[in-house]
This record gives sequence, C-alpha cells and structure tokens, in this order.
Amino acid sequence: MSDVYKLIEIVGTSTKSYEDATQNAITKASETLKAISWFQVVEQRGAVKDGKIAEFQVILKVGFKLVD
Amino acid sequence: MSDVYKLIEIVGTSTKSYEDATQNAITKASETLKAISWFQVVEQRGAVKDGKIAEFQVILKVGFKLVD
Amino acid sequence: MSDVYKLIEIVGTSTKSYEDATQNAITKASETLKAISWFQVVEQRGAVKDGKIAEFQVILKVGFKLVD
Amino acid sequence: MSDVYKLIEIVGTSTKSYEDATQNAITKASETLKAISWFQVVEQRGAVKDGKIAEFQVILKVGFKLVD
Amino acid sequence: MSDVYKLIEIVGTSTKSYEDATQNAITKASETLKAISWFQVVEQRGAVKDGKIAEFQVILKVGFKLVD
Amino acid sequence: MSDVYKLIEIVGTSTKSYEDATQNAITKASETLKAISWFQVVEQRGAVKDGKIAEFQVILKVGFKLVD
Amino acid sequence: MSDVYKLIEIVGTSTKSYEDATQNAITKASETLKAISWFQVVEQRGAVKDGKIAEFQVILKVGFKLVD
Amino acid sequence: MSDVYKLIEIVGTSTKSYEDATQNAITKASETLKAISWFQVVEQRGAVKDGKIAEFQVILKVGFKLVD
Amino acid sequence: MSDVYKLIEIVGTSTKSYEDATQNAITKASETLKAISWFQVVEQRGAVKDGKIAEFQVILKVGFKLVD
Amino acid sequence: MSDVYKLIEIVGTSTKSYEDATQNAITKASETLKAISWFQVVEQRGAVKDGKIAEFQVILKVGFKLVD
Amino acid sequence: MSDVYKLIEIVGTSTKSYEDATQNAITKASETLKAISWFQVVEQRGAVKDGKIAEFQVILKVGFKLVD
Amino acid sequence: MSDVYKLIEIVGTSTKSYEDATQNAITKASETLKAISWFQVVEQRGAVKDGKIAEFQVILKVGFKLVD
Repeated sequence: MSDVYKLIEIVGTSTKSYEDATQNAITKASETLKAISWFQVVEQRGAVKDGKIAEFQVILKVGFKLVD
Repeated sequence: MSDVYKLIEIVGTSTKSYEDATQNAITKASETLKAISWFQVVEQRGAVKDGKIAEFQVILKVGFKLVD
Repeated sequence: MSDVYKLIEIVGTSTKSYEDATQNAITKASETLKAISWFQVVEQRGAVKDGKIAEFQVILKVGFKLVD
Repeated sequence: MSDVYKLIEIVGTSTKSYEDATQNAITKASETLKAISWFQVVEQRGAVKDGKIAEFQVILKVGFKLVD
Repeated sequence: MSDVYKLIEIVGTSTKSYEDATQNAITKASETLKAISWFQVVEQRGAVKDGKIAEFQVILKVGFKLVD
Repeated sequence: MSDVYKLIEIVGTSTKSYEDATQNAITKASETLKAISWFQVVEQRGAVKDGKIAEFQVILKVGFKLVD
Repeated sequence: MSDVYKLIEIVGTSTKSYEDATQNAITKASETLKAISWFQVVEQRGAVKDGKIAEFQVILKVGFKLVD
Repeated sequence: MSDVYKLIEIVGTSTKSYEDATQNAITKASETLKAISWFQVVEQRGAVKDGKIAEFQVILKVGFKLVD
Repeated sequence: MSDVYKLIEIVGTSTKSYEDATQNAITKASETLKAISWFQVVEQRGAVKDGKIAEFQVILKVGFKLVD
Repeated sequence: MSDVYKLIEIVGTSTKSYEDATQNAITKASETLKAISWFQVVEQRGAVKDGKIAEFQVILKVGFKLVD
Repeated sequence: MSDVYKLIEIVGTSTKSYEDATQNAITKASETLKAISWFQVVEQRGAVKDGKIAEFQVILKVGFKLVD
Repeated sequence: MSDVYKLIEIVGTSTKSYEDATQNAITKASETLKAISWFQVVEQRGAVKDGKIAEFQVILKVGFKLVD
C-alpha cells in the first residue's frame, strides 16, 4: 500500500538559537518516535528577562512515516 | 536539558458558552494528560436547531510539557 | 440528489456577550430562513464608550440546506 | 481635516470569561487613553492548572481617534 | 457529559488521485482509531518524475470522538 | 455601465469526488441563478463512516453577473 | 432588539480606478438594497490588453442592516 | 549599533481616494513622529450613505527609525 | 555546494479534473524545465457555462533544482 | 491541448497612485512578455519623506498564457 | 486587578543572524520599557549587496506588562 | 521612468543554519541575476535523519530591479 505519514506539533526551547531549539525538540520526540523525517517551522517566539533574550522557542510540525 | 512541549488539537462542546465548551475539552483531555498548561482557540462554531443555538463548539490547541 | 447547502454572512450585536450576539443574529436570520443548521465565527469585535464595552459584535457564517 | 485613528494591541486576562478579560484590558488602557471607541479580537488563549482553566487571555486591537 | 473530539494530522499518498490518497490515509489511521467521523483537507501537493505526476499527496486533519 | 458581479458561498456533496460535489452544487444553484460563470474552491472536507469516505464536501464561492 | 447586519460579496469593475470600480458595485447593489452602510475590500485584480490595464476589478464585502 | 525601527498602526480617512486617506494619516502621525520612512496597507474599507461612498478608510502600518 | 531549488507558479486547465489540469500544467512546463520534482496546489477554480463545469483550473507552485 | 498560464510577481512604483504604479509594472513586463492578460494585487506599500508620500509601491502577480 | 499587557511591533537589524537582530531590537526597546517579557517573530527579511547578505531584519511583536 | 522590480521564489539548503541556507540560495541566484537587493523568508523547513537535523531548508522571495 502507498505510504502514510503523521504530523505532530511540538515546541522546542533553547538559550542559544532557533536551530538549537529545533534540535532539542527533535531529540526529545525521537525518544519515542524512530521514523521522524522532516519538520516545518510554525512559529518562533521567545522569553525576555532584564532586556536579554532568556529563551528561544520554536513551534514545529514534525512528520514521520506510519509503519505496519 | 531544555523543556519540550507538545500541542494537540481537541474540540469541546457545550450548550452554554465557549468558556464551558473549553473547560469540557480540557477536563476530558486531563484524564490522560496530567501536565496541560495552556490552550489557544483555533476556531469557534456551533449547531443550530429551530432557530436556537443547540451547541457551542470550540476547536483548541492544548499544550503540555513532555516529561522524562 | 445529494444535499447542497448555502452559507450567508451576518453580524449580530449584544450588550451582554458574544453568545448572546450570536443568538440575536440567528433569531433574525431565522425569520426568513427555516433550515439554519450551523454557524462559524468569522470575527469578534465591539464598541466602547467611556471606557466600557458598549456592544459585542460577532460576524458569523451561517449554513442552511437548500431545499427542493 | 478628516479623522485619523490609532490602533494599539493589548492583552487582557480574567478568571471568568473572554468578555471580562476584554473589559479589564479596556479599563486599564482607558486610564491613559480617553477616546477608545472600538476593539477587534486578535486571538483567544488561556492558562490551565490541574485540569481547570486558570485564566482567559484575549489579545485585542483597540482603536481611538487622534485628537488635535 | 458533552462530547469531546480530537483532531490529528496525517498525510496520504496515491498514484491516482487526491480522493484515493485521502482514502489511503483514512484506511491506515482506522487501524488504530475506530471512531473517525470527518476530515478536512489542509494541503495538496505531489511528486513529479520525468514530467509525469508520480504521486498525489494530501495533508488531512482527521476528527474522531474521544470515548469514555 | 461597467459590469458588476455577485459571489455566493455554497456547499456541494458527493459520494464520488470533489469534482462531482462541485457540479452538484452548481446544478442546484443554477435552478435559480442563470448567469453563473465561475467558481473558486474555499475548502474541501468529508465525512467518514467505518473507515471509508462516506461523502466529499466542497465549499465554493460561485460568481455571476448582475443583470439589469 | 439589538441590530443585525448582513454582508454580501460583490465585484465592481471600472476602466479608471479601484475607487470608481467600488462606486460602480455599490451603485448596482443599491438598486435592490437601500440600507448599505459600509464596505471592505477583499481583493483587487484587473485585466490587461496589449500592455495596458483594460479594467480594474475590486471584490468587496458590503454590509447593510436587516430591517424589520 | 545597528538600526532599530518601530511600526505603529493608524487609520486614515478621506472623501476622495485611498491615496488621500493615506496622506492624511501620515500628515497627522508626522506631527509627533519626525522619522516616518515607509508604510504598508493592512486593510481598505469605507462608509456608504444613500448609495454613495461617503468615506474611504485605510488601515496602515507606518515604520520609523528609533533614534538615540 | 548544497542544493538550491526554484519555485515557479503556473495555472493548468482541464475539462476533466483537477488532477488532469495539474498534469497539463506540468507537461507544458516540462518542455523547457527538465528537473521538476514537486508541486503544491495554491488554488482551485473553474469556469461554468449553462450550469455545467466548463473548465477546472488549478494554480500550482512547481519546484525544480537549479543545476550547475 | 488545454491552456497553461504562468504567474510572475513584480513590483511597480509611482509618485502618483497605485493605479499608476500598476501600469508602470505592466508596461515594463510587457517589453519581454507579449501575452499578459490579468493581474492580482498582492500588497500595497509606500515610501515617506518629510511627512509626504514619496512613492507608492504595488506588488502584483501578473498572468500570461504560455504559447507553443 | 488582573494583569494587562501591551504588544508593540519593532524591527531589529544585524549583519550576523536573526537571533542577533532580535537582541538588538530588544536592547533598544528596553531603554524605555523595563518590563518586556516575551516576543513573537512576525517576519524575517534581509538586504543583499553584491550577492552577499548585507543585513538580517526581523519584525517582532514584543509584550510587556502595564504596571500601575 | 519609475523603478520596477521582480520577485522570484527560491529554496536554499544548508547543514548548518537558516542564515547559511539563505546565503547559499542567494549565491546561486546571483550567478545569473546581478541586481538582487532584498529577500523575505516565506517558510523554514528541514530534513531529519536518525534524530538529528540533516538539512535546514529556507524558502525565500528574492527581489531585484529590472534594468533597461
């Protein structure tokens, strides 16, 4: 049968960059999902403390193949 | 490691109000998810019968922390 | 033949709540349309007077079946 | 000269409803702006604690006339 | 209590049509979810090889009732 | 005078395809409107029963010239 | 009872400007609707012939009060 | 340090055209802001009276450099 | 060096289906572009004549690799 | 074979109006493209100098038929 | 009383990265606003000179609490 | 005559960051286009392999002046 994929939405955080926040989210999701193959950025946000960026936050859609 | 969150999409219903429909959806989701911390309204709809609102429906994204 | 529906866009107002504004719009539309079965919220706005909400306004799409 | 208006974006919160969160935001903004005449809802969100809605949050655009 | 639904996002593929890609996604999702009752098309895409459509891809939101 | 057109929003349904659902909606609308000249797809949805697509639904904007 | 309004979507055309196309659409709609009180621009398009703009087209939502 | 700009949202009105409504809004905003350098149109609306356009309204984002 | 792709926007037409309109657009584009590898549907429209769909129109973004 | 069209995105500028900026863009594009038949406005912006509009800018999608 | 927040829109620039452009914007805004607590990315753009990125630009919404 | 610009859509890739993916796309496009002056980010995506980000992908609109 033809391939079917699932998309889930997760939020990664990092004190360094959006790229690092993305990797953190994917690392966590990979603990339970082995077949993640792509991601799309939905939104980028962050927290500020005393005039400094305290946290980068990235909302992602992550796609993986549903296996039999 | 930095925090990672998951977002799921649910639909709550109520005969009273959008606020009540939202609480109904969160009550149901909380049966299996203990760490829900925020929600965002995606869409508000409703059903009508004989010229009266029969049901308020609210589509929500609900966010919770992925724990280790 | 299969069912066909029509969507019209109406604006309801109320001094009390969005739910009440929605019911007001549907009550008015039901005077001429008997088969309204659902609505979707398009936008929520309001008027302010002397620092108080004077009117809640809700823009709705209202759906009903076209009968033979 | 013809009228000119300004729009600002504010976030109101309430433990009760979106309508109450909206009034709270407008009450606060009215302390410094006397001429607020309308608002538009941009987004509705909320906080959850122990499976209960702890706070309704509403992001508003608020419009007022620029006076001479 | 009033009904609560969940929406998940899946991607179906087919060499024939979007309708077939949609059925393939729902067939796969139905292996684990018995109560699917509606779907909404989020996006339609496809793969091309040597100037021919090699695969139709449809991203769907699929809704089902959360049962007790 | 220059031409003026009106757009109405209708929903067609079919057990076969989105194309058939579109034709069904236009056939029904043509009973009362003679001058329909174009349509735009607003949304595609469907109903599912026992893991099978039970109905394709297409929301259309349909345009026609207002005649004198 | 509180006021209820209806929104319809029309397309005006003009060889001169978007403002003229808008007035043309409203003039035509006013033949059957007496209570039009506002409009919103949905889209601006046009036709081109031999490298010259042949027609400005404006898609409008037009609002009017439903009277008793 | 690198340049930083601020965007504010204003609404201009005119009985003549959108271009005139835009200039009116910028003239008013320039009374207190000297460094306005660009604008973006967010929305175009208008008021109608007796089948004639009574007022063009344009919602603008206006950008200016924050100076030291 | 890493891969770079270009996206172009084309409109295909067909009297049969959206799938056929898509293939027609890709066939035409492939006359001058050899490396087309994917497409995304931007919009679906159509022409109507005498109450029958006369033409399906599909607006596509088509992606291909820029080769050295 | 059925018709295929291409859409390109261009930006026109003018010190006078959006209509003039649109014609300028189409005049320039027509130097190399003979078959332009329609345009859609994507965005309207402008430059400001000393509180006066210095330039109207209009981002357009321009459509033309691909000929054999 | 419940908390009320304000959102303002600013544009940061940097020759290095979007993260640096974001910090620059927040540093500047913090000169006059002490309570900034979060930001959302609205748009990412940039300037190019001789085939090199000359400037990263990030449009942000920045939120802060309105204090009594 | 007033300036006219063209916008094209390209996709850059990089194993390092979105900024690097953007520069790669612009470097490639600059081989044939000398006058690129700005870009806008349309979408950010990526590929994942074995729980690691394998590729950052950025979809850009790139603007350049049409010269005589």
